[in-house]
Amino acid sequence: MHLNHISYYLPSQVVTNEHFNKLNNLSKDWIIERTGIKERRKASPQENTHTMGIAAVDIGLATLPYPIEEVQLIVGATYTPHDTIFTLGHAIQNHLNISDIPVVTISSACSSLLNAIEIVEGYFAMGKAEKALVVVSEHNTAYSRDEDTVAGHLWGDGAAALWLSKEKIGGNDIEIKDVTTGGAGNVGKAKESVVLKPIDGGFEMPFGRDVFIHACEYMAKATQDILKKNNSKVEEVAYFIPHQANYRITKNVAQTLALPMEKVISNVGYLGNTGCAGCAIGLAENIHNFKKGDNIVITVFGGGYSYGAMLMQA
Amino acid sequence: MHLNHISYYLPSQVVTNEHFNKLNNLSKDWIIERTGIKERRKASPQENTHTMGIAAVDIGLATLPYPIEEVQLIVGATYTPHDTIFTLGHAIQNHLNISDIPVVTISSACSSLLNAIEIVEGYFAMGKAEKALVVVSEHNTAYSRDEDTVAGHLWGDGAAALWLSKEKIGGNDIEIKDVTTGGAGNVGKAKESVVLKPIDGGFEMPFGRDVFIHACEYMAKATQDILKKNNSKVEEVAYFIPHQANYRITKNVAQTLALPMEKVISNVGYLGNTGCAGCAIGLAENIHNFKKGDNIVITVFGGGYSYGAMLMQA
Repeated sequence: MHLNHISYYLPSQVVTNEHFNKLNNLSKDWIIERTGIKERRKASPQENTHTMGIAAVDIGLATLPYPIEEVQLIVGATYTPHDTIFTLGHAIQNHLNISDIPVVTISSACSSLLNAIEIVEGYFAMGKAEKALVVVSEHNTAYSRDEDTVAGHLWGDGAAALWLSKEKIGGNDIEIKDVTTGGAGNVGKAKESVVLKPIDGGFEMPFGRDVFIHACEYMAKATQDILKKNNSKVEEVAYFIPHQANYRITKNVAQTLALPMEKVISNVGYLGNTGCAGCAIGLAENIHNFKKGDNIVITVFGGGYSYGAMLMQA
Repeated sequence: MHLNHISYYLPSQVVTNEHFNKLNNLSKDWIIERTGIKERRKASPQENTHTMGIAAVDIGLATLPYPIEEVQLIVGATYTPHDTIFTLGHAIQNHLNISDIPVVTISSACSSLLNAIEIVEGYFAMGKAEKALVVVSEHNTAYSRDEDTVAGHLWGDGAAALWLSKEKIGGNDIEIKDVTTGGAGNVGKAKESVVLKPIDGGFEMPFGRDVFIHACEYMAKATQDILKKNNSKVEEVAYFIPHQANYRITKNVAQTLALPMEKVISNVGYLGNTGCAGCAIGLAENIHNFKKGDNIVITVFGGGYSYGAMLMQA
């Protein structure tokens, strides 16, 4: 499986820590110390999960190395849905006007990027598609409350689009050597530590500590497992992109893996937690820095809980 | 791919047309004439998408022909989510306490059953699972308004659980000979005819006529296509289960296919539209009537739009 192309979109409005300082009396330095977040993006009232996903696709279309009509599968991923019937995936299909291909939208919370890619891998294995488009989009601010002193300042909005193919398309492809996912819904306080009940108040994160502990543990383990399975070592990783939830989690995972921070890609400082879009945006932001042969690892952890890892080679 | 076992759950509260007659001055006979629906089930205030899905699983567990621990993949499907982070799939994993298997929850609206089964087929093809559990659950009444004179009376709640295996397990297996899905998000009024925007009022169905026309067209075509692809004919179909949205749609599709109504399974009259659970409940209700060698076709159509068909043999 190969990543042929990637693009991302961020809404223009920047929300700084100053906003949460004024609103909730949270010190700017305290927010940075606890989360690493200095600012985050917020969708405008005219934007939503669909419009951001479409914007990410349109940005990528300009330099897509093949006609968009060659896409044979669309997988949307979001836990902040704009519409659960005319879903994100269907909105992308509508925008691109590609008929009669499988379309679905999924959630495993912040892990969804890798679940989406693994579902694509399944369609490739069945021979039901040769090229696929994955769109990850989160409109966190639609479901969070700025007044939430526990978690209101964590969230940002954004989207990314990834074009994948079964076979190698061109010299700029990044090979996806392996992807693994796992649910951990039966672990710790998975049921209640971070939830998004659309008809019952949106986001709640009453047990952030439980999320922190399990995110650190699972992302380190998922990375070690995928490297071992592929006869590779941490020292051979050129770039590491953990789920962009909190810079303290990122540092903890890197430390457990003995990975120097220079190899770690992080955008949480200026984007906040952009959910399942975070790692994809990080990948897109840095794609032109990768050198031929570089190994890149993405690892994710989602509320609920879920985890995954992906090993790529430029 | 084989269906090893199936079960379903319905909440106990029955809502008759009398309720909508009193509330909205809709004649009971008019509702029956337009939709075929006489009554539907409604989840209690303590129930939701998760509890109904778990109840369906627990009912099936009693007679599951293998230990539940053999399940290596869980796919939840719903467009009426209780929680988009601790998703339906994760709630099932939590309840069953099976660790470290892929878990995801999907939506392609009322088509999701077949998308879920196709995703399972992909995991089987990759060799990443040999047995899987699909749980379809809809809590429509959480997102609909009884006062909605256009669509309030259409919806019912319910759930089903389907255990699938790559290889044949036993003599009672139903073979899934083929499954196909397609998005039609670029067709007609897909974008707006039926929507569920969780933070913007829930269900709206401003263009029911457009849904009706496309549902009739796509379910007939998906059935014809899957039969042709598998060298089978309409006359060889013993049981036909179209999406349980509206009995007029069911009759229209059967008529187009020249399928006698005796072969058609329908529960919409006493359950209403139970979304992506409807066909699975219909399959579960009738599973003991199937004779060895019977061909069964499920076809679905979802708002947004999406469609699919599945050919099975008892």
